[in-house]
Amino acid sequence: MSFSPLIQQLITSLRCLPGVGPKSAQRMAFHLLERDPDGALALAEALQKSVSEIGHCKLCRTLSETEICDICSATDRDSSVLCILESPIDVLAVEQTGGFNGLYFVLSGHLSPIDGIGPEDLGIDKLLERVQSSDIKELILATNPTVEGEATAHYIAAQVKDLGVKVSRIAHGVPVGGELEFVDGGTLAHALAGRRSLL
Amino acid sequence: MSFSPLIQQLITSLRCLPGVGPKSAQRMAFHLLERDPDGALALAEALQKSVSEIGHCKLCRTLSETEICDICSATDRDSSVLCILESPIDVLAVEQTGGFNGLYFVLSGHLSPIDGIGPEDLGIDKLLERVQSSDIKELILATNPTVEGEATAHYIAAQVKDLGVKVSRIAHGVPVGGELEFVDGGTLAHALAGRRSLL
Ligand SMILES: [Zn+2]
Ligand SMILES: [Zn+2]
Repeated sequence: MSFSPLIQQLITSLRCLPGVGPKSAQRMAFHLLERDPDGALALAEALQKSVSEIGHCKLCRTLSETEICDICSATDRDSSVLCILESPIDVLAVEQTGGFNGLYFVLSGHLSPIDGIGPEDLGIDKLLERVQSSDIKELILATNPTVEGEATAHYIAAQVKDLGVKVSRIAHGVPVGGELEFVDGGTLAHALAGRRSLL
Repeated sequence: MSFSPLIQQLITSLRCLPGVGPKSAQRMAFHLLERDPDGALALAEALQKSVSEIGHCKLCRTLSETEICDICSATDRDSSVLCILESPIDVLAVEQTGGFNGLYFVLSGHLSPIDGIGPEDLGIDKLLERVQSSDIKELILATNPTVEGEATAHYIAAQVKDLGVKVSRIAHGVPVGGELEFVDGGTLAHALAGRRSLL
């Protein structure tokens, strides 16, 4: 069946949501138009406002609508421990374990020479500056337990070797080949607690 | 973990999508903001445009951005058979079987005395007018195979008893207690083919 152009456009646009296939997108479009037009308009506004006003924290580079995010500006966190992650959603995953009270640094993904993504694209230069200019005593490398995440962790470990900070990698309690954001809180808390020293 | 107000608002707004729980909404919000802001803006625009420009076909009452929908204005469909459905997404479900070439009439749901929803709320008066003023020879009652859908079908059958049209109910190939929109095409095609005469 062919849809009218506008309905088809809405269905196609809904496909930008992760995990939404053609069938779900159809159901969502009809549901919104028939049952919840107010919800649809509220969602449209939230999307526009979020995209225009949410940027990245200047310190940790996670998503934030303020220059410095709530975590970085908190006074009750341990600023001597820095947890390195691949993306903002991983901050969420670690925060939800309730087992970490340090600060974060969010890379823009992982090293991927095949895609031409090198250290400077990830912000590793900014990370090194931060380590050198602050009182950080330990780096926890919590990049994803994938080949690229491991390579990124080892690259960072090599770069900070002479800076006198402790460097650890989260324990392999997290399933190898998986993505951090899908790991349950218990496993992730365990992985953080069981981190092993690299340097 | 508490989110910044804007991120929280986006997550909450995404919950208006059917089948999206708190975890999926978080994943969607972070994905859009971090990886696909252009997709988010395109979705916002499609939502606003759709809600403002898509209404209901004057004849069959399905969702349509034109006064008369494509199905009602098609010249190659059998205008003597009218299929009665509970909602626009059911039109989609029946169309996708490829087994029906008549026209449609979409009710606004089903009779529900407990919620104070009576025949006139569903548009049954409009349906009766249409049956009386056109060359319709058969009504296929394809409301959902639920208690309310059955009651609605029987109510309509009783109303048109003296109008000289054939009235049939889709066969119980569709699972009892289920919703039409989730029935696979084969089962639905079978149910349409095996419809039994009520009058
Ligand atoms: Zn921050
Ligand atoms: Zn129509």
